[in-house]
Amino acid sequence: MPNFAIGVDLGGTNLRVAAVDESGELMKKITTPVKPLRHSELIIATMCADIRELTRTYESAGRLLGIGIAIPGIIDMAAGVLRESPNLPGWQNVPVREEVERLLGTTVVLDNDANAAVLGEYWIGSGREVESMFMFTLGTGVGGGLILNGSIWRGMTGMAGEPGHMTFLPDGPPCACGNNGCVEQFAGASAILRKARQCTTGPGARELMAELRKIPDFSGQDLFSLAAQGNKAAAGIFEEAGRALGTSVAAMINLLDLPLYVIGGGVAGGWDIFSPFIFEEVERRSFVYRSQSPATRAKITHALLGGDGGLFGAARLAMLAAAEGTNRALQNDDVASAAT
Amino acid sequence: MPNFAIGVDLGGTNLRVAAVDESGELMKKITTPVKPLRHSELIIATMCADIRELTRTYESAGRLLGIGIAIPGIIDMAAGVLRESPNLPGWQNVPVREEVERLLGTTVVLDNDANAAVLGEYWIGSGREVESMFMFTLGTGVGGGLILNGSIWRGMTGMAGEPGHMTFLPDGPPCACGNNGCVEQFAGASAILRKARQCTTGPGARELMAELRKIPDFSGQDLFSLAAQGNKAAAGIFEEAGRALGTSVAAMINLLDLPLYVIGGGVAGGWDIFSPFIFEEVERRSFVYRSQSPATRAKITHALLGGDGGLFGAARLAMLAAAEGTNRALQNDDVASAAT
Repeated sequence: MPNFAIGVDLGGTNLRVAAVDESGELMKKITTPVKPLRHSELIIATMCADIRELTRTYESAGRLLGIGIAIPGIIDMAAGVLRESPNLPGWQNVPVREEVERLLGTTVVLDNDANAAVLGEYWIGSGREVESMFMFTLGTGVGGGLILNGSIWRGMTGMAGEPGHMTFLPDGPPCACGNNGCVEQFAGASAILRKARQCTTGPGARELMAELRKIPDFSGQDLFSLAAQGNKAAAGIFEEAGRALGTSVAAMINLLDLPLYVIGGGVAGGWDIFSPFIFEEVERRSFVYRSQSPATRAKITHALLGGDGGLFGAARLAMLAAAEGTNRALQNDDVASAAT
Repeated sequence: MPNFAIGVDLGGTNLRVAAVDESGELMKKITTPVKPLRHSELIIATMCADIRELTRTYESAGRLLGIGIAIPGIIDMAAGVLRESPNLPGWQNVPVREEVERLLGTTVVLDNDANAAVLGEYWIGSGREVESMFMFTLGTGVGGGLILNGSIWRGMTGMAGEPGHMTFLPDGPPCACGNNGCVEQFAGASAILRKARQCTTGPGARELMAELRKIPDFSGQDLFSLAAQGNKAAAGIFEEAGRALGTSVAAMINLLDLPLYVIGGGVAGGWDIFSPFIFEEVERRSFVYRSQSPATRAKITHALLGGDGGLFGAARLAMLAAAEGTNRALQNDDVASAAT
């Protein structure tokens, strides 16, 4: 049996804990719906119980390299504290790392879900053949993560990778972040569904309104199905999403000239509907892209790991931290042996 | 006498060649207007003569570390060839590096002027205290350069750092790059002067038109003076420049979370007039910026080296290449001595 790490992906819907081996093979995954657990204490306790179960199952055969936890929201990386999270209501200033480490009696690595997702894609998904990439995570909002020369780029305060709040239309609809016309207001599930509900006139509007009445909890996936069936109102909403994403991909190409831009997350299921507009905008708005030959130009594609990117990425974070720790220990050994 | 490098900054107006010592002190600078030289052959010959003169003057006292050349335009870094340049008409596919190396009988380092300018600012200007920064170079167009963890970020094909062609207004005025509403169409000198000439109605328009008739070769500096005197038409043009720049700085903060954004180049002389609008847009459009405390948040400021940033940066490029070469040689020595 190979060495392995435990990856945890805590989302607004499910808590997922998995054992992943060094080559990126999923060994076992435990999924628990989050809502019935309600409080952060119970969620963290369940997480730790799942981690212990997987560790017990596999530790006789391979070495546990580490434990990585991906959570949505704003994380104080130095302190290991979740400051706030739109997807985890009630979680404010929760010292997740300290709590988990206390319960497990071992160290863990904590990062936000978008960083974990891009790391997963970089490791064993769409980014396997590049050294640098950007990934959008389309969910309720629009998040993202950046890999530069093999490492997550976190920025000065750990807040890098927020493409959802790049401005697409300077005088566009207001965003909860305080800005107007953010990409998230065109490509995030909340905005997409709000637009669907507000769509009362024009081609396809009547059919869309009927579907909205018919389907309880009408989702982005439902809207996507409707667009795929040829509904013009639904297709128009995805067209706008594609144009907003394409305009920001074009800006990133002009600014960073990366080899790969990936669209992931739930709304990415609409790829076939909105991707033509991404490419149209990128062609139009990036002379850098146009100046590159079709064979070697930046690749724009969808994520390959689906909803499991963050889970694999969390496990990978733990493996990388373990390798770094080993390197540091080896260097210290060198110093020690040089001194003797 | 300290060791030194030769920096060359070839612009559309002047050829400047300087000796710069290791601490960033300018030892001597030779400036030659480019227009009378006309052909690329004569410009390159003059450049080499200036380099030889400075080398002869200082080489008895200190060691020449290397020669760095900054040129505007699209450069094939691997081949050392200037593909094309809006500021150097007639220079197409000129093998600058090969030509200079043949004439001088030694190796040189070649880079584009925006990369050299940001490296100069990073070394001894506004960026002395940070590890990462972005710099806009406002000239005829809007260029830029990015430093990440102490190194120029060139991107996959060497075309990173083109903030002038990030989209500000998706349906804005057409740009020569093929896009609409590029930042350059609001903050580049060409666009700014075109707008001034097109301004025929509204407050201050009559006075602006009179100035345009009066002053031959009316420049961005003239428009800046007029705005500083309170002319509303001129001030409005700089306000739009500031808003376009601020919106793209906000996008970069949300994407990269760098500690420093610098505005340099000729048009940056209008800093006092347009910078309030940069800050207004960044405050509004970047929740990452707002979430950082005023003491530790990203700094947005003007360049400190004026027109000499590229010259210092070119010299620095040569020093860094020399240091890298030495490191490589030392490593090879290690291998060699380990083998014996």
